[in-house]
Amino acid sequence: MTENTTHRTPRHTTRIVLAERPYGAPTAATFRTEDAELPAPADGELLVGHRYVSLDPYMRGRMSAGKSYAAPTPVGDVLPAETVSEVLESRHPDFAPGQLVVAYGGWQSAAVVPGAHARAVPENGLPASTALGVLGMPGFTAYAGLAEIGRVRAGETLVVAAAAGPVGATVGQLARAAGARAVGVAGGPEKCAYLIDELGFDAAVDHRSRDFAARLAAACPDGVDVYWENVGGRVLEAVLPLMNLYGRLPVCGLVSQYNADGGAEGPDRLPGLMRTVLNRSLTIRGFIQTEFRARHWDAFQREMAALVGDGTVKFREDVVDGLGNAPQAFIGLLEGRNHGKLLIRV
Amino acid sequence: MTENTTHRTPRHTTRIVLAERPYGAPTAATFRTEDAELPAPADGELLVGHRYVSLDPYMRGRMSAGKSYAAPTPVGDVLPAETVSEVLESRHPDFAPGQLVVAYGGWQSAAVVPGAHARAVPENGLPASTALGVLGMPGFTAYAGLAEIGRVRAGETLVVAAAAGPVGATVGQLARAAGARAVGVAGGPEKCAYLIDELGFDAAVDHRSRDFAARLAAACPDGVDVYWENVGGRVLEAVLPLMNLYGRLPVCGLVSQYNADGGAEGPDRLPGLMRTVLNRSLTIRGFIQTEFRARHWDAFQREMAALVGDGTVKFREDVVDGLGNAPQAFIGLLEGRNHGKLLIRV
Repeated sequence: MTENTTHRTPRHTTRIVLAERPYGAPTAATFRTEDAELPAPADGELLVGHRYVSLDPYMRGRMSAGKSYAAPTPVGDVLPAETVSEVLESRHPDFAPGQLVVAYGGWQSAAVVPGAHARAVPENGLPASTALGVLGMPGFTAYAGLAEIGRVRAGETLVVAAAAGPVGATVGQLARAAGARAVGVAGGPEKCAYLIDELGFDAAVDHRSRDFAARLAAACPDGVDVYWENVGGRVLEAVLPLMNLYGRLPVCGLVSQYNADGGAEGPDRLPGLMRTVLNRSLTIRGFIQTEFRARHWDAFQREMAALVGDGTVKFREDVVDGLGNAPQAFIGLLEGRNHGKLLIRV
Repeated sequence: MTENTTHRTPRHTTRIVLAERPYGAPTAATFRTEDAELPAPADGELLVGHRYVSLDPYMRGRMSAGKSYAAPTPVGDVLPAETVSEVLESRHPDFAPGQLVVAYGGWQSAAVVPGAHARAVPENGLPASTALGVLGMPGFTAYAGLAEIGRVRAGETLVVAAAAGPVGATVGQLARAAGARAVGVAGGPEKCAYLIDELGFDAAVDHRSRDFAARLAAACPDGVDVYWENVGGRVLEAVLPLMNLYGRLPVCGLVSQYNADGGAEGPDRLPGLMRTVLNRSLTIRGFIQTEFRARHWDAFQREMAALVGDGTVKFREDVVDGLGNAPQAFIGLLEGRNHGKLLIRV
């Protein structure tokens, strides 16, 4: 009798581990696929089988050893990710087999997770996958960052970078719903058309265009009151001269820098930034959405489900089938090749 | 009968005008001394004779044509300044001859000013000159910037640049009064000794020392929660790696950059700043004290007079006699050669 046959549920997992730390952009060599047997869940734990694995830019930070807002993933460990998963075995009183939960299940097909860190996929009439997107971490990032930092008001202008991504798209639509002018920055004409035609942005500017700064200025005739930073680099540089007095810059991500290693070449743009901060009384505020969970999560679930339900906020998912495609999908995410919330369907 | 003899009060003024815009640091050629006769005050105006003219770093911004938070001084105009002045003639119901007022009287010996923009020097038992310093704009800058942005709490660490100046010295002492650790950065051993021995700072670091960054780190064993930016440049660079989660950086001045023209040489420190802002959830907030006048001025006058009166907050004035010495004194101010609030005694 082998170990496997003593269990009634499948405890096998196919998982993707960090094979080596990437220097610059991740490559195929960054990742390694392994098969493993999971232990039986202990008291308080769940065995879950994943349906969707969420891929998000913040994961690039986990792959490096440098100081970031979370500890790096050790080499050889499963890469971290939120998942929508089915409970297969439960040793936690709040969960039963068959139930769908959001868990930190990682880049794999199944996992044993603490029940205390899982939450039921809400029953809001929306697809379960939205619990990883517009109703999950990216949507909450947009909602809480606007509530706490952006505070965009009717008549103001908001510029959002990576506007076709799940955070940026939600930021722009929430700004529109608040009565503000929403200007999206995205890569390529297709994404820009999507922002205007499908999401109702007031303007969209292609950051690949040669006269990007001039186009951005033309799209913001009354200046910029909120710049939502997802990207870093030249978008920030182009938007700074446009900032109005008391402008707010929530710093949510810096995806253009995640693959950067070492020092950046000059000229030094720091003095110019600080002068603008002083002269325009700007607020620059970095944040991670977990900071605002306790204060805003429940209202977010309620309000965002209503806004998505009545069509005020639209969303798009970019679903890739098969865990084996996760590395390439993630590499593409850092290059802006996804279109909408990137999910791996297991 | 000459024009002069028709008036009972002396309307002569000796004034210093902007002779030419400085490129880089101001020089003697930036300034020109003139004599002029003032008009009779119109309805609502005051003729005032100055006792003290306040010299402050922000004036460097007014000398340039570039975009700043206030309009530049036209070439040929009197340089702007707050003054403590005696009312000589009043055509405003709130003021009477002989009264001391704070006015925007400029770099000169007398002026005609709107009564609506003047305020009585408060009767708080302190010298009238303090209305330009610890009880005036610099003191209020410290008080309001801490109340609104720094929000330093007991047990936290605050680092302040230009700590021997009137804003920095007050910031550090208010932080100490709030139960925080106050670390001052200043130029030279004399100023550093003053911060510790006279003002009660917990530590002081000489930014001219070769191992400045290491000394600053050693002075902040628990990291930095508030960095008060008066200076720009290498102090910011040294403090950034020390910033704690949710740290606050009030940006009050950038005196090291005021004389800079054109681009700064690389490497580009902007990406590193933005990464730290994101990873540590920092807040960088530029401000000009006028933003907070309505909300905090009255409480500031009351509380700061009490704190100065009981010795909790000490102050030092650097009084230079004679308007003719104002240009050299101002040039020295931008180089950090003053020691305490710089005032010209007329």
